[in-house]
Amino acid sequence: MAASSLFSSYSMSMEVSSPKIAQYPVDYLGCHRRIPSKPLGYLNSICCTSSRFLRNGKLSKWEKAERFLHKAGIRCQALEIEAAPPSVGQKFQLDDVIEAQQFDRDMLNAIFDVAKGMENIERNSAGSQVLKGYLMATLFYEPSTRTRLSFESAMKRLGGEVLTTENAREFSSAAKGETLEDTIRTVEGYSDIIVMRHFESGAAKRAAATAGIPVINAGDGPGQHPTQALLDVYTIEREVGKLDGIKVGLVGDLANGRTVRSLAYLLSKYKDVKIYFVSPEVVKMKDDIKEFLTSKGVKWEESADLMEVASKCDVVYQTRIQKERFGERIDLYEEARGKYIVNQNVLKAMQKHAVVMHPLPRLDEITVDVDGDPRAAYFRQAKNGLYIRMALLKVLLVGW
Amino acid sequence: MAASSLFSSYSMSMEVSSPKIAQYPVDYLGCHRRIPSKPLGYLNSICCTSSRFLRNGKLSKWEKAERFLHKAGIRCQALEIEAAPPSVGQKFQLDDVIEAQQFDRDMLNAIFDVAKGMENIERNSAGSQVLKGYLMATLFYEPSTRTRLSFESAMKRLGGEVLTTENAREFSSAAKGETLEDTIRTVEGYSDIIVMRHFESGAAKRAAATAGIPVINAGDGPGQHPTQALLDVYTIEREVGKLDGIKVGLVGDLANGRTVRSLAYLLSKYKDVKIYFVSPEVVKMKDDIKEFLTSKGVKWEESADLMEVASKCDVVYQTRIQKERFGERIDLYEEARGKYIVNQNVLKAMQKHAVVMHPLPRLDEITVDVDGDPRAAYFRQAKNGLYIRMALLKVLLVGW
Amino acid sequence: MAASSLFSSYSMSMEVSSPKIAQYPVDYLGCHRRIPSKPLGYLNSICCTSSRFLRNGKLSKWEKAERFLHKAGIRCQALEIEAAPPSVGQKFQLDDVIEAQQFDRDMLNAIFDVAKGMENIERNSAGSQVLKGYLMATLFYEPSTRTRLSFESAMKRLGGEVLTTENAREFSSAAKGETLEDTIRTVEGYSDIIVMRHFESGAAKRAAATAGIPVINAGDGPGQHPTQALLDVYTIEREVGKLDGIKVGLVGDLANGRTVRSLAYLLSKYKDVKIYFVSPEVVKMKDDIKEFLTSKGVKWEESADLMEVASKCDVVYQTRIQKERFGERIDLYEEARGKYIVNQNVLKAMQKHAVVMHPLPRLDEITVDVDGDPRAAYFRQAKNGLYIRMALLKVLLVGW
Repeated sequence: MAASSLFSSYSMSMEVSSPKIAQYPVDYLGCHRRIPSKPLGYLNSICCTSSRFLRNGKLSKWEKAERFLHKAGIRCQALEIEAAPPSVGQKFQLDDVIEAQQFDRDMLNAIFDVAKGMENIERNSAGSQVLKGYLMATLFYEPSTRTRLSFESAMKRLGGEVLTTENAREFSSAAKGETLEDTIRTVEGYSDIIVMRHFESGAAKRAAATAGIPVINAGDGPGQHPTQALLDVYTIEREVGKLDGIKVGLVGDLANGRTVRSLAYLLSKYKDVKIYFVSPEVVKMKDDIKEFLTSKGVKWEESADLMEVASKCDVVYQTRIQKERFGERIDLYEEARGKYIVNQNVLKAMQKHAVVMHPLPRLDEITVDVDGDPRAAYFRQAKNGLYIRMALLKVLLVGW
Repeated sequence: MAASSLFSSYSMSMEVSSPKIAQYPVDYLGCHRRIPSKPLGYLNSICCTSSRFLRNGKLSKWEKAERFLHKAGIRCQALEIEAAPPSVGQKFQLDDVIEAQQFDRDMLNAIFDVAKGMENIERNSAGSQVLKGYLMATLFYEPSTRTRLSFESAMKRLGGEVLTTENAREFSSAAKGETLEDTIRTVEGYSDIIVMRHFESGAAKRAAATAGIPVINAGDGPGQHPTQALLDVYTIEREVGKLDGIKVGLVGDLANGRTVRSLAYLLSKYKDVKIYFVSPEVVKMKDDIKEFLTSKGVKWEESADLMEVASKCDVVYQTRIQKERFGERIDLYEEARGKYIVNQNVLKAMQKHAVVMHPLPRLDEITVDVDGDPRAAYFRQAKNGLYIRMALLKVLLVGW
Repeated sequence: MAASSLFSSYSMSMEVSSPKIAQYPVDYLGCHRRIPSKPLGYLNSICCTSSRFLRNGKLSKWEKAERFLHKAGIRCQALEIEAAPPSVGQKFQLDDVIEAQQFDRDMLNAIFDVAKGMENIERNSAGSQVLKGYLMATLFYEPSTRTRLSFESAMKRLGGEVLTTENAREFSSAAKGETLEDTIRTVEGYSDIIVMRHFESGAAKRAAATAGIPVINAGDGPGQHPTQALLDVYTIEREVGKLDGIKVGLVGDLANGRTVRSLAYLLSKYKDVKIYFVSPEVVKMKDDIKEFLTSKGVKWEESADLMEVASKCDVVYQTRIQKERFGERIDLYEEARGKYIVNQNVLKAMQKHAVVMHPLPRLDEITVDVDGDPRAAYFRQAKNGLYIRMALLKVLLVGW
């Protein structure tokens, strides 16, 4: 995109019905910045100077453009089409981050490479200016301070700026009955990328379908939380040094935790992975994931013996038993939460190179005396969320 | 202000009773920055080095200064008086943005010219640094995510920074009984401009009377929302290409909507304007506006036929029927809200060049299938709010 | 630290049991930035390139490091030790700001010197870039808009960036039962300094003990609010021109106000200070402070005659009677609040050079007609909070 600054331009207007082809340097065309965030196949950007058409400077879908262009009232004056073939970077086309399933092994590796570079940038006191001039809107329909701060820190570490809505559900015009789509159409006019947390499954996908700028799903209800899944896999690779051939014990609430479900999904993309499920009876891993793993040739087994699993695994991934899922049955909750605790005894059973992970917040499912052990990786894991989010923001806004 | 860097300076102190006149280069005087935000006639800035007088570096009114100077305890050491006559830019003196009524036709044109320039800046990826080093405080006593994000985006697109209070009513010392004036005096010490939303009519005027820095009214209760009025007029000019001679249909809740009232007011400044009022009986335009328009020679009529009005108008300005105004009478609300809907049929009646506007949020008073039509201008209208706010921030902070 | 870029480096690993000493230029070591925020004696920074140890790049205590190093699994590759002796600036070692008691007279003077320099920076329109690339997290477990805006303005006036949590108590994972320590460990991964307001006394100390980055206490419940205490003393020095030998009248709620208690404490560090306590019977200054003052040789007396005290003092420090402390006894509150009002009569009794101070917000314990008098110092006092906080942020992040 940057290498060659010549584009062939397709100019049309109501007056001139037969299109003219011309060469323009990139800078010649005014609205260059916002459009490229979502390249449309080979078509890299669209520029319309009319006051009517595309003044917002954004267009989400080529089909949408075409629909406009064939209608009466076309006032688009210039339409850039990139002459060059797609670059290597374009092999991993990333428009939005909506769900863990959208990433394959190669793209994960590419993202992890960028994330590793971010570790150095974050340590540099001058700060990076990679995203200088870019604005991220954090549209949080339910509060999640940890996730919000992580994204906002990522944006600011790269020199970008942030517009924050900490409690969009209560405060925004959503309360007056505005649709999510309308909100997105307004917010995309004020920003370059939207990070959205929502209480409804599928909300992120709807937002991305509407927005002409990239959308990152920061959790949509019981649905997806893809950046958490990515940081989990990234942490395993950074801590253990490999992903193929690893043994992972998933412990705790496996029925309700979306993190363990997403992690199991992503681990299926690697070779010779073995997964152990260790959970109280009431919150066992559901059959859909088990069947999916089997179909992908991933070995898994259920176990009630945390010590034995701990002794075999490279990663013990502990999770919080979520009280809110038990309703009136406090007795069941109390029974479940005390059952599998990662403590000094578990540490003793674990191998020297193995690590303990946890998506946080933790209550007492990992005892505090574990924190001092070098194998306690959960705070490094939280920090890795920063690097992953820096990487995604960079790739979505300025490319690989 | 920048052209000539020589000012005649009026130096006084308790010791020297007869003032001395001297020439100083601008930089010689320390507190140059904050003061000029509100020039006091020809007096351009006041600089006092005493620890007692004006340490905050702000002074809202020349009278206030005079009162101080004639009192005991005068410790002001230097008082700049600009030698030069006011520049062309100073013809449009803008200290605060409080109400639509403060703008005349010439000043609107001048602001719109600046706003047009902002459209280019917003598209430039490097971002503007026009307001680098300036801090805007968004003091919102009632939430309005859309308006807040628009102002904050405007400030950041120009390189400025923002201090946010999303819910000042609940959180701030207002809850402990502090007056608005005291809050303003504190906040002006932390920022260079205040954007305030308040639940009480007249609050913005009180804030501006207190503050030594510019205040922008972002809506004060049932009172004014001047930046909305400006962006509406700007949108009409950008979409239709003119303001003189236009025909505008105001539709929906004309009794409670402050946007339509302000818009009607501002349109009276242009020639040969014709306004149609189309609204359910219970929310008709009030007599004060009708009488005002008549007194200004603006033609207007009421109509119950949206299709006929749509066929004649350059602008169909739809508004939301505000449920909260109907209290217990849900039946009246339901009747009112269904009465005038902008849909495909209305589009068919409209002329090719005409546009549909709406201040947003919309519910179903414009059907979603209208969105795809090039004449649906409401999201571009929301975006124009960004340009108008960028323009106002620039003019208030660094001048024309 | 900057003068010499050579450090002697202490390299260790599991493989090499005997340490090697080598010389490295500073830049050779990657994680230079975050560590120096809390120098550990002469040891200036620690750098570990292992993926396991210290990846977060922070280490709060030398003991903590040592504990790690002597454990199995040491993977630290390099350990910098500064060759040079501590500089003059290091005489005033400042790691965190937790309580007023941590400051002695010399350090207060040093901070005030930096604060005075900040007054010039704040007036410079270009803005300082001293803290460019640094991120401050404002972690507010209870709302305090005034204090939060003051800190955020301070950070931004120095070119730094801010992550905001306006209502951490309600929103954050604290609601799910996460400990403060865990929250701090996460947030320190996203930022370079934490400004925390909490509802529990001692919370700031706990946070500082956990964090590897500086922590500033912005008020912890009934405990401390050290930056308020510093700005009060700074204001007295700026307004009166001295601290030794001053006479201060503390008026109003002396039982519950933490500001007057902290101020009394700090004033004991100066010579020949005289303090007058003027308060309704129900909210008299408690014995612990009186005894402390006596033990330090500070003269104090209680008085019921505000006019007489006002005529003698350099500073009349008025405070708000806190209604919330009276519970059901509204009668006692009403009696207390009306008893000592600073009004024009008090002004007349005061000396020309004396000033009225107040921590704000004020209700009617200072009448509004006092505001116009040059001796009304309370809004300048609020502004001084900005300079003090700018100074503290600068010293904690980049040193003296």
